[in-house]
Amino acid sequence: METPTLTRSDEPTSARPASRHAAHARELEELLAAVAALARELVAREHDPADPALRDPVALAGRLDLALGAEGLETGAVLARLKAVLEATPSTSSWRFVNQLFGGREPVATAAEMLAVVQNVSMYTFKAAGAEILVERELLRHMAELAGFAGGEGCFTPGGSLANLVALLLARNAAAPDAREAGAPGGRLAVYTSEEGHYSISKSAGIVGFGRRQVRQIAVRADGGMDPDALARALAADRAAGLVPALVNATAGTTVRGAFDPIRLLAELAHAAGAWLHVDGALGGSLVLSPAHRHRLDGLELADSFAWNPHKMMGVPLQCSVLLVARRGALGGSLDESADYLFQADDDELNPGHRSIQCGRRNDALKLWAAWLRLGDRGYEARIERQLGLARLAAAKIAADPALELAELPASINVCFEVRGRSSEAICERLDREGTLKIGHGVVAGRRTLRLVCVNPDLDEGDLDAILAEIQRAGRALPPGDNRVGAAS
Amino acid sequence: METPTLTRSDEPTSARPASRHAAHARELEELLAAVAALARELVAREHDPADPALRDPVALAGRLDLALGAEGLETGAVLARLKAVLEATPSTSSWRFVNQLFGGREPVATAAEMLAVVQNVSMYTFKAAGAEILVERELLRHMAELAGFAGGEGCFTPGGSLANLVALLLARNAAAPDAREAGAPGGRLAVYTSEEGHYSISKSAGIVGFGRRQVRQIAVRADGGMDPDALARALAADRAAGLVPALVNATAGTTVRGAFDPIRLLAELAHAAGAWLHVDGALGGSLVLSPAHRHRLDGLELADSFAWNPHKMMGVPLQCSVLLVARRGALGGSLDESADYLFQADDDELNPGHRSIQCGRRNDALKLWAAWLRLGDRGYEARIERQLGLARLAAAKIAADPALELAELPASINVCFEVRGRSSEAICERLDREGTLKIGHGVVAGRRTLRLVCVNPDLDEGDLDAILAEIQRAGRALPPGDNRVGAAS
Repeated sequence: METPTLTRSDEPTSARPASRHAAHARELEELLAAVAALARELVAREHDPADPALRDPVALAGRLDLALGAEGLETGAVLARLKAVLEATPSTSSWRFVNQLFGGREPVATAAEMLAVVQNVSMYTFKAAGAEILVERELLRHMAELAGFAGGEGCFTPGGSLANLVALLLARNAAAPDAREAGAPGGRLAVYTSEEGHYSISKSAGIVGFGRRQVRQIAVRADGGMDPDALARALAADRAAGLVPALVNATAGTTVRGAFDPIRLLAELAHAAGAWLHVDGALGGSLVLSPAHRHRLDGLELADSFAWNPHKMMGVPLQCSVLLVARRGALGGSLDESADYLFQADDDELNPGHRSIQCGRRNDALKLWAAWLRLGDRGYEARIERQLGLARLAAAKIAADPALELAELPASINVCFEVRGRSSEAICERLDREGTLKIGHGVVAGRRTLRLVCVNPDLDEGDLDAILAEIQRAGRALPPGDNRVGAAS
Repeated sequence: METPTLTRSDEPTSARPASRHAAHARELEELLAAVAALARELVAREHDPADPALRDPVALAGRLDLALGAEGLETGAVLARLKAVLEATPSTSSWRFVNQLFGGREPVATAAEMLAVVQNVSMYTFKAAGAEILVERELLRHMAELAGFAGGEGCFTPGGSLANLVALLLARNAAAPDAREAGAPGGRLAVYTSEEGHYSISKSAGIVGFGRRQVRQIAVRADGGMDPDALARALAADRAAGLVPALVNATAGTTVRGAFDPIRLLAELAHAAGAWLHVDGALGGSLVLSPAHRHRLDGLELADSFAWNPHKMMGVPLQCSVLLVARRGALGGSLDESADYLFQADDDELNPGHRSIQCGRRNDALKLWAAWLRLGDRGYEARIERQLGLARLAAAKIAADPALELAELPASINVCFEVRGRSSEAICERLDREGTLKIGHGVVAGRRTLRLVCVNPDLDEGDLDAILAEIQRAGRALPPGDNRVGAAS
């Protein structure tokens, strides 16, 4: 081992870019040009149909050179393989991608996220992440204000499922204050969500110790919102049986229909029963930005927690999810650990690791902040109006076409409909195999419908026409099929 | 509402880049140049000392223009604000950042992650993410093989804390098969980890319903590894009291000392008691890539699960964490939900949403795959040898310097030491306020030591000299201090 040769000085050392740092900086510099070139190529082609040969996973695996091995490759060879993989990746900003509750992009959010990758901080402490903590704090402040949670607190979570999980955790600990220390009192507590709510409520109930069996799937009204009378009956039945209602989940934007539960009524029922009221606004939470549609979330300010995914309607890259909580201190009460190897400087308020389900945590704030600066609340309002307007326009086109059948007027951005006499599932499958369109299906009132998600505001009327034309073409090429749930398709 | 004017055709529509898509593509194109320019500037300056004026959160908040408001801004104004924030963000690839268990970067991983941001897929299904699913599968296959988990399964998680949480969940459900449905049997099950293990074990026990009180903090031996005799006594005492040992956590690379628990002995004790053996290799798991050091993980192939964070020693951007599980089917058994609005095509094997705690999930695989292609197993082996070698070199320098006191020979990449007669905490604080060095402290054998993390392989001997010189300079500027834990510093 070498003899140490310490540099001694009473002055701070000056910058000293050593050779290994410089070599890696040069490599990154060269790669930045390649990244920009490849990104341009991908974006230029993102509206092309996909090569059907890429759709078969077995054939695709054979075609791509994916194997990891002992020896490394030159940068050029890595870039060639990267390019091949990226070309075989669906383009989620294409008009041909209406399969999920996200799609499209705000360019400045993409750019900011790319810069966050270069900086690569972890968001537990101000010491480690500096100004990024202040950016995140400003976002949480602004979002809390918009949601009617001013004075509350919040955290970023890696996706809406985990935002819901944390909400269930807080509600569990509110209903059973000893649960964090002594263990969850499984079987004694109950959770309520609508039969059309997201699967993460049931999943999280299985994780945080309620038990999935303790989740009541409450019936919905014709409009897809939870039936408050059915909720009241379920709460009463459980209380009569000696169970403790712990949480009512009100969904703001259901996964298939984009429907809204009546939050105010549910909040009143939940609170009268002593339960936590959570609003799962992963999809529809962004409507707080629209004065014209804010009423869909009427009563939100009564909620105890609110999950909101900006990576859906706000167009920032995955992941970007926020959980807002009305009572300051609740997050730390269920999540904080004393870890003096981590929290070593600054007030707790500046160290969001105290309020997170994660320890190391990537920066999901910068992209949203950049997009919000670019658009402002008014720009986001216009974006959301456009998404809702596209859904209404698509619905009008469908309603006017005798070959199509609209399931219902869209509750928000999801348009559910059928091609008369053709299986919705078979149409989705065929379009996907062809590479012409990615679209999914879901059940509305006992029938399997196509679900056209109008989340990408860059769609225009011509895109809607093209999407509907693709769907009809695929339908004409298929034999007759039945969409009644349970029927052979 | 406009009258629908459908385009009808029996052929798939050709590409039709409409004006809004084109405008956003142009905006992104312009931004890509700005991203590259800003990234170059940040990288060029990342070894400079930080401006001390940026260290005060109140002053910094006053200086930055963070506020979100009603009106949007031009792109140029957004970029100017972004730049100001990024310049006030710590540079985690600088030699001046040895504060955390990550630091430095593999350039090709950064580049691949930037491209993943442009593509922005969600990793639940092959339909939505295409070739990216195959990339992730190849990584899990290769990592499982290296870890001795061939034939098992795995998932990417948003950080090591959540990997540990999922492991606790699987162990809970193995010990109490009814827990997912009926609720967690709080208080009946027990969890074992060393007193120097990561806080996420206790935190997760509070979340998944064991209760934090059910976590036994087992004493460590002088080398920082868990004492197997103490574990055996704790297991026996709990069993005698009628409790069910559910999980033993063996840490591979403790947070402060980088120490390794004796996995083989712990696995034998755990399994004899009917408990799950989890290995938390968030930090040290990467040593499976080093034939010379693999023995530190001896017995890993006996484990039931293994958490491994490539965003630490493997140099890829946060987040990149993997949980490997020995028994195929365990992840789905605790996490899967039937959600027919999501899982609509392809075999379950190609839809990793069935095995994830998340629903929407960003692509954390592409960056690791690119870096692994670039380096190969051998390049990663060399990287890890270098990290360990840097720690040994730093330790030798410290041991040879009469003003410094080495706490112990480094167990892996963490070097714990003191400046004789000076408070470790005060030194960290002073260096951080000055902007010259980010370094943390931790307790070893009852004394508060500086923790120098040698995770950035771009450090060289000159950097180590400079780091130690900064520390000694800061120490000389401070009054005498005491590092005994409990003493006033």
